[in-house]
Amino acid sequence: MGRTFVANDREYAVPRRPVLAVCADGWDPDYVDDALARGHMPRLSETLDGDGCYLIGRAQVPTFTNPNNVAIVTGVSAARNGIAGNHYRDESGREVQVTDPSFLRADTIHRTAAAAGVGVLCVTAKEKLRRLLAYGGVPAFSAEAAHEQSLADGSPIVDVVGRPAPGIYDWELSVYTIDLALAIATRLGSELVYASLTDFVQHTVAPGEPLADEFYRAIDAALGRALDAGFVVGLAADHGMRAKTGPDGHPNVRYLDEALGAAGVSGAHTLCPITDPYVVHHAALGSLAWVHLADLDQLERARGALASLPGVEGVLDRHAAAEAFDLPADRIGDLVVLADEHTVLGKSRAAHDLGSLNGHALRSHGGLHERAVPIIVCSRLAPARTAGPELHNRDLHDLLLNRLA
Amino acid sequence: MGRTFVANDREYAVPRRPVLAVCADGWDPDYVDDALARGHMPRLSETLDGDGCYLIGRAQVPTFTNPNNVAIVTGVSAARNGIAGNHYRDESGREVQVTDPSFLRADTIHRTAAAAGVGVLCVTAKEKLRRLLAYGGVPAFSAEAAHEQSLADGSPIVDVVGRPAPGIYDWELSVYTIDLALAIATRLGSELVYASLTDFVQHTVAPGEPLADEFYRAIDAALGRALDAGFVVGLAADHGMRAKTGPDGHPNVRYLDEALGAAGVSGAHTLCPITDPYVVHHAALGSLAWVHLADLDQLERARGALASLPGVEGVLDRHAAAEAFDLPADRIGDLVVLADEHTVLGKSRAAHDLGSLNGHALRSHGGLHERAVPIIVCSRLAPARTAGPELHNRDLHDLLLNRLA
Repeated sequence: MGRTFVANDREYAVPRRPVLAVCADGWDPDYVDDALARGHMPRLSETLDGDGCYLIGRAQVPTFTNPNNVAIVTGVSAARNGIAGNHYRDESGREVQVTDPSFLRADTIHRTAAAAGVGVLCVTAKEKLRRLLAYGGVPAFSAEAAHEQSLADGSPIVDVVGRPAPGIYDWELSVYTIDLALAIATRLGSELVYASLTDFVQHTVAPGEPLADEFYRAIDAALGRALDAGFVVGLAADHGMRAKTGPDGHPNVRYLDEALGAAGVSGAHTLCPITDPYVVHHAALGSLAWVHLADLDQLERARGALASLPGVEGVLDRHAAAEAFDLPADRIGDLVVLADEHTVLGKSRAAHDLGSLNGHALRSHGGLHERAVPIIVCSRLAPARTAGPELHNRDLHDLLLNRLA
Repeated sequence: MGRTFVANDREYAVPRRPVLAVCADGWDPDYVDDALARGHMPRLSETLDGDGCYLIGRAQVPTFTNPNNVAIVTGVSAARNGIAGNHYRDESGREVQVTDPSFLRADTIHRTAAAAGVGVLCVTAKEKLRRLLAYGGVPAFSAEAAHEQSLADGSPIVDVVGRPAPGIYDWELSVYTIDLALAIATRLGSELVYASLTDFVQHTVAPGEPLADEFYRAIDAALGRALDAGFVVGLAADHGMRAKTGPDGHPNVRYLDEALGAAGVSGAHTLCPITDPYVVHHAALGSLAWVHLADLDQLERARGALASLPGVEGVLDRHAAAEAFDLPADRIGDLVVLADEHTVLGKSRAAHDLGSLNGHALRSHGGLHERAVPIIVCSRLAPARTAGPELHNRDLHDLLLNRLA
C-alpha cells in the first residue's frame, strides 16, 4: 500500500491525492435523506449515483461534538482517547470545558501524518475545538475566530479565503469553514485536510424547513468545489439531532438535581456534558447526563430515583456505561443517565436559561437516538463488498486513506 | 477475489482451502491468556508466534450462547437475525426455547455458501443449536445426540469419528465436537466447517484450575489436528465467563420478580434468557434478564425498583436496549436489567434450583462483563494493519474467508 503512518495502532496510507474529511456537525441521516430526495444536493447525488458510497455508521456515545470530533481525528473510541464530553468535572469538583489538548490520551491522525511528512490542515467552525485539533503542532484554524488568525507567513486567513467570516449563529458559517479549508489547503499545499462544521442549522430547524434546504444547497456547492479542486471527499456526522419538545412545543426537560434532592439524595452534582459556549443552540440541554454523587452509599437510592423519572430510558453505573459505550471510566459520572428520543436532561430550572434558545423549538442530541450517523465517501471503495464490520464515524480516515478502489 | 457468495448483504469469498470456524463457547480471554502463558496450548502459541493473529472483539449482548452462535453464522447482529436469547416469551406469554429455525430473520452464511456450491458442515456440542444451524438444509450434527445421527449414506456419525460421544457434562465433549467435525468433513469433503463447542468447563472452573488446564491442552491438540489436516482455522468465543459468587462462595443472585412484587409492581414476568436444558452449568442464572410488565403504566415504578437493587448496574427500556445493543425490540423485555460483574439475576428463589449446580461455585455470563471475546485466526491476515474497524465475533467468517493474506 505504499508509504504509511500509524496512529493509535491503526495504519494509514499516505494519500496520493489530497483528501478532505468533513465532520458534518449534527447531520442526522434524516437531513441528508431529505435533502437528497428533494434534489437539494445535486453534486452529492451525482457522486452517489456514480462511485460514491453512503453508509450509516455509529457515533461515540455520548453523542456530543467534542467526543466525536476527537474520535474521528484519533480513529479510536473515547475509552482510549479520553474525551467523553464537551464538559468535564475535574478532581476538585469544578466543571471545565474540554478544550485543552492536555485532555487527550491518544495521538491524532493529523499529528502522526505530519510527522510522516504529510501536509496536514484542520479547520473548524467552532473555536472550542481548535486547540484540540492543533495538538502537536498541527496547523489548525477556526472560522469563529478567523479574524484573529494568520498563516505562518503572516497572511490573515480571512484574506486567504477572500471574505470575512459569518457569525457563530449564522447558517453560512459551515460553508465558510469548507471554503476556508480549501483556500488554506491550496495556499499551503495540504494533502490531508479536516473540516469540522457547526450544527447551528440542525439545532434550529427540522429537515425540510427552508433554512435547512438553503443550508444543504450551499453545502453541496461547497463540497462540489472541493471535488472540482481534485480532493477525495468524505464526511461523517458527529451525531444526529432530534426534536426535544412536548406536545405544547416547550422543551421536554427532566431536572436531575431537583429529582435527586426530592428523593433525599444529598450533594449530587449533575453534569451536562453538552455544555459549551453556544447556548443558543441547546441551552446546555442534551439527552445524556452524568451524575456525580457526594456519597456513594447513596448510589442505589440515586439510581432508583433517576430510573423512576418519565422520559429517562436508561440508567447505568459508571463501569457499566464505560463498558457499554467505550468510555473512559474516570471521566464520566458515577451514574450515566439516558433520556428518550424526545427528552433532555438538565441540572435544575435555575441552571438553564431556556430564553437563550431565542424562541426556536429545542432540538438536541447526546443520547442513543442520535447515534446513527451518515458516513459518505465520494469515491469508489474497495473491495466492492456492500457491508463489512460495523463502522463508526471514527473510521472515516480509514475509509478515505485505506479503502479506496 | 474470485467466486463469492452473499449472506445478509455481506459478500464472502468461496474458500480455496478448507476452513474450520470454531465457536469457542465461554472462552473468556482470561482462559486463553492463562493457557498460553502457562504453555498449555503449544500449537496455538506456535501459530501466534508465526502468522496467526489474536484479537479481542465483542460479543452480542446479551452474552449468551444462542444469540452469539447465530450472530457468528449469519454475520449480522441480533437486531437483524432476530435471535436475542436462548429463551423467549411468545405472544401468548409462554416461555419457549429458541431452537426452531422459524425464529431466524436472516439467512445463514452456510446456507448461502451451500447454494453457491460450497460444501458446508455444522457440528455443535449442544443439541439445542443443531436445528438453527441446519436451517435451509445445511448438514448439521450434534455431539450431544451423536448416537442418534447418521450421514445421508446411512453411516452412524459415531462410526465416522470412531468413538462414542462423551456426555453433555463431560469436559471432553468439546474435543469430541472438533474431532467429529473433522471426521465428517473429511468424509464429505466439506470446505466450510463450523464447530460450536460447550462451556461446561468454563462454567465449572476458573482459569488455571486443573480441569481448565486439561481442557485447553486437549483442545489445542484437536486444533492442531485441524491444522495438520490443512484447514484454515479460526475461532471466536460466544461470550466470556465470570465468577458470580459472594465472599461466602454462594451465588450472588437478585430475584427480580420478588423485588418487583415488594415494590408493588403486579404481574411482572422476569425472563432469564440464559435458560436452556443445561441447568448444571448455571441454574438458569445469568447477568442479564428481561422483565415483561403486565401493565406498562407501572414502567417507571418497575424501573426505579430494579435500579435500586444492589448488584444491578443498569436498567434500560426496551427501545433503549435495542438501540444500545443491536437487539430486536420485539423479542426482548419491556425492561432490560444488567447485573454487575459478580451478580446474576433470577425470577424468584423458588424458580431456580441452586442444587442443580452440584456444588460447584457459580460461574456465568450474559452481561457487559462477558462481552470481550477472543477472536483468533491461525493464518496471516491481510492487509497487515494492526487494527481496523471494531470487530465482533460475528466477523469471524469475514476474517477467515475475506481477509487472509
